[in-house]
Amino acid sequence: MSHTDFQTWSFAIQQQMEIAMGGVLPSAQHLPERLHEAMRYAVLGGGKRVRPLLVFATGELVDAPAERLQYAASAVEMIHAYSLVHDDLPCMDDDVLRRGKPTVHIEFDEATALLAGDALQTAAFEVISARPLCDEPADQLAMIRILATASGAAGMAGGQAIDLASVGKPLSLPELEHMHILKTGALIRASVLLGSYCGRPLLTAERDKLDRFAKLVGLAFQVVDDILDVEADTATLGKTAGKDAANEKPTYVSLLGLKEAKQRAAELEAEALDCLSGFGERAARLRELAHFIVHRAF
Amino acid sequence: MSHTDFQTWSFAIQQQMEIAMGGVLPSAQHLPERLHEAMRYAVLGGGKRVRPLLVFATGELVDAPAERLQYAASAVEMIHAYSLVHDDLPCMDDDVLRRGKPTVHIEFDEATALLAGDALQTAAFEVISARPLCDEPADQLAMIRILATASGAAGMAGGQAIDLASVGKPLSLPELEHMHILKTGALIRASVLLGSYCGRPLLTAERDKLDRFAKLVGLAFQVVDDILDVEADTATLGKTAGKDAANEKPTYVSLLGLKEAKQRAAELEAEALDCLSGFGERAARLRELAHFIVHRAF
Repeated sequence: MSHTDFQTWSFAIQQQMEIAMGGVLPSAQHLPERLHEAMRYAVLGGGKRVRPLLVFATGELVDAPAERLQYAASAVEMIHAYSLVHDDLPCMDDDVLRRGKPTVHIEFDEATALLAGDALQTAAFEVISARPLCDEPADQLAMIRILATASGAAGMAGGQAIDLASVGKPLSLPELEHMHILKTGALIRASVLLGSYCGRPLLTAERDKLDRFAKLVGLAFQVVDDILDVEADTATLGKTAGKDAANEKPTYVSLLGLKEAKQRAAELEAEALDCLSGFGERAARLRELAHFIVHRAF
Repeated sequence: MSHTDFQTWSFAIQQQMEIAMGGVLPSAQHLPERLHEAMRYAVLGGGKRVRPLLVFATGELVDAPAERLQYAASAVEMIHAYSLVHDDLPCMDDDVLRRGKPTVHIEFDEATALLAGDALQTAAFEVISARPLCDEPADQLAMIRILATASGAAGMAGGQAIDLASVGKPLSLPELEHMHILKTGALIRASVLLGSYCGRPLLTAERDKLDRFAKLVGLAFQVVDDILDVEADTATLGKTAGKDAANEKPTYVSLLGLKEAKQRAAELEAEALDCLSGFGERAARLRELAHFIVHRAF
């Protein structure tokens, strides 16, 4: 396969994911229709699909079949989508706009949003266990474990709990970093690891390099998120801009200042790229993706 | 092992489960403490542990090692616990009492209850994938699939969505039954199936018999639940009694009357026991458990 440019490649993956997730999610024609509709609303028709892109880019490195990657990526993206639905609820961030559309509890109602988030989390574990994604079933069990650990109290949900406790409270830079490593970093790291399990076996040292790459990209992603929350407007972001300052949430920008935050993002990108140096051309897509994550405008 | 009486046996399992789940759940001494505390509060120190008892009773039928059963049972019980936490939230049933204690969002707060439920669901998939529970990893993938299907939109969460839509609306008996088959039946069925995978392989015909047994017991469980909601008081139930009538929720009692509902429970028990006839003494514990489920007073 010749190397298509990044934009063409990412657009093709986004299209493929839309179809794949549309096929995996329960039909809105089937009972209970409203729940299914809310689940589809939360997942389909938008989003940068950064996590699926990471799964696929890592998949290129191990020559993984696209079909396996699409299911692994669907699982990660459904976990991400569920977390957004619950995060937007009135008892959490109480947000009304997401990906340029009303949030699920606004478009439907709170109870439906709660259940849709719950069922999306379950659907993630269903899709990652429903069909063979590795040559060895034992490796697929490892994938499920990776996804669970990244999503739960030791990962994303734990990070959200720390975030919740930090509103209006001064966090130090290490504390902020720890929160982000859990809240967004864990699932980004899982995306890379899951992709790496779908193809040719890697040496432990190689997987460790990818893991470190993923950690650094996860942090860079969050630094850029904080910068964009200050610099971009609501229309570009598709979600409420300036939210962090309004909520008195500590961010990289509030702790470091805008200039230093940008420098931190650039350093993290450079360190991340360093981790890929041993992989040669096989890691071309991951390099492009790291660049995109740091230099995106939304 | 000689056949201890049912009460001694079930008490021993309840004790073992308390220790097992206490060990699997994250420590309340570790960050984020409040989330971990809420998770432990939701799971530990109460509950009949009907689903774990079903896992263990089925395990006796296939000579499964107790250690495997305890992890499979922990997974099912954590799914059950998460569903109760979310079900009690203000946007759902808005309940303040559960197992004789304040519900999680009353004892903590809504956001913590939301996250604790989320993280408990994840923990269930973590515990069921973290260590070998079958001789064949492929069978363990089947277990995970069973748990996911039983918990999600095609199972428990779907049943809750139908339940939600049914408040104040007349449901026919078949509709009510369909709702319960999803809402409580699916996870009870999963409990039996998970237990059956932890030991000696079964013939497909044998597993089908167990599956049918589990479906019938699941329905009987719900009929008895509806009867108890009318007949028992809040102190005995440990949750708010008379809730269904107050919420104008259709129940077996409201549709059939008390006498016929009791007869239906007895019929379901007899049909369930029929399914076990080919298993001889190996199914002794499952028979006792079916009897307990139908004749319990709380």
